[in-house]
Amino acid sequence: MEEAEKEQHQKRMQKQKEKVDSHIASATIERGVAILLTGNGKGKTSSAFGMVLRAMGYGHKIGIVQFIKGAQQCGEADYIWQHANNVELQQMGTGFTWNTQDKTADIEAAERTWLHAERMLQDESLNLVVLDELTYMLGYKYLDRHKVIEAISQRPHEQSVVVTGRGGGRELRTVMDTISEVKDIQHAFRNGIKARIGVDY
Amino acid sequence: MEEAEKEQHQKRMQKQKEKVDSHIASATIERGVAILLTGNGKGKTSSAFGMVLRAMGYGHKIGIVQFIKGAQQCGEADYIWQHANNVELQQMGTGFTWNTQDKTADIEAAERTWLHAERMLQDESLNLVVLDELTYMLGYKYLDRHKVIEAISQRPHEQSVVVTGRGGGRELRTVMDTISEVKDIQHAFRNGIKARIGVDY
Repeated sequence: MEEAEKEQHQKRMQKQKEKVDSHIASATIERGVAILLTGNGKGKTSSAFGMVLRAMGYGHKIGIVQFIKGAQQCGEADYIWQHANNVELQQMGTGFTWNTQDKTADIEAAERTWLHAERMLQDESLNLVVLDELTYMLGYKYLDRHKVIEAISQRPHEQSVVVTGRGGGRELRTVMDTISEVKDIQHAFRNGIKARIGVDY
Repeated sequence: MEEAEKEQHQKRMQKQKEKVDSHIASATIERGVAILLTGNGKGKTSSAFGMVLRAMGYGHKIGIVQFIKGAQQCGEADYIWQHANNVELQQMGTGFTWNTQDKTADIEAAERTWLHAERMLQDESLNLVVLDELTYMLGYKYLDRHKVIEAISQRPHEQSVVVTGRGGGRELRTVMDTISEVKDIQHAFRNGIKARIGVDY
């Protein structure tokens, strides 16, 4: 590489560094954040569990409530139950609405599972709370959305919360700091590829 | 709930179950998948590490190569180095281009780091390989994209691979089974909230 090119690259990068540094310097508020991972693409639950792994690296205390899930084995829950002492993971355990086919029982299960979430959202010792697939409970009206939104917004100042699932509604978004929409551009499943152990479940 | 409503719900769900079951039955190909997590929103790296945690639940062997990262501490790497025996994690360790400000050194580091990726993509004992932020190496032309695409497409039949990072290019997409675009709808950082330990790093 020519000296002139090198220098030009260095100058450009120095300028960018100043820009990045000034952005970082202007973010001064320190508190737990609320994150919504929504959209119809693959990667919402796995993203939440990636943050769990990240927090586990610091020995943080974590609470996880999985709505819907629990009827089928999944690797992340297995790992946590077997190896992660600082993580409490609760599952609704009923499976999808089309598996249960019983709305009354689904609502009861949702309410019962919500009690864990409510308790965790009041627990100052928890650094991170994950409410996996909570949005479906709101979409189906299995849980009262005012109750849910209030519990999230009233949580301890230092606690972060991650909510996953398609949709979520306009009101839920008002209490979120970060919202990512995971768009499904392409999915292996539509090309006839079977769900993969260790990747999809 | 009225009996009629119950019955209607049950019928609707039964119909949906049949639809879902038929979709599942038509996905018959069993092999490792290639997943691209792209877009400018929060959740790409964390999603990749969520799949790592998932695979760890089955005792799978995993290889991870992180391009760019390594200059700053991150919880997921700490956890893996301390606790995960079946996971090899390699980092480029240079930080962002605006930190290094040295293109020649960046290219050398990228090439050196790629050797780990290449080795992992030929290792039949690995169930899952994560190439975190690889797309930037392609975008900057630090790595030859033909070499990268060939290595991914020639990997062992049962091995899954997850690539993360903004962009990625049209050609990389041709060897991907699943593509999710993580769209940044809102980010705490833009509202002055500092990056959060255990959530952002």
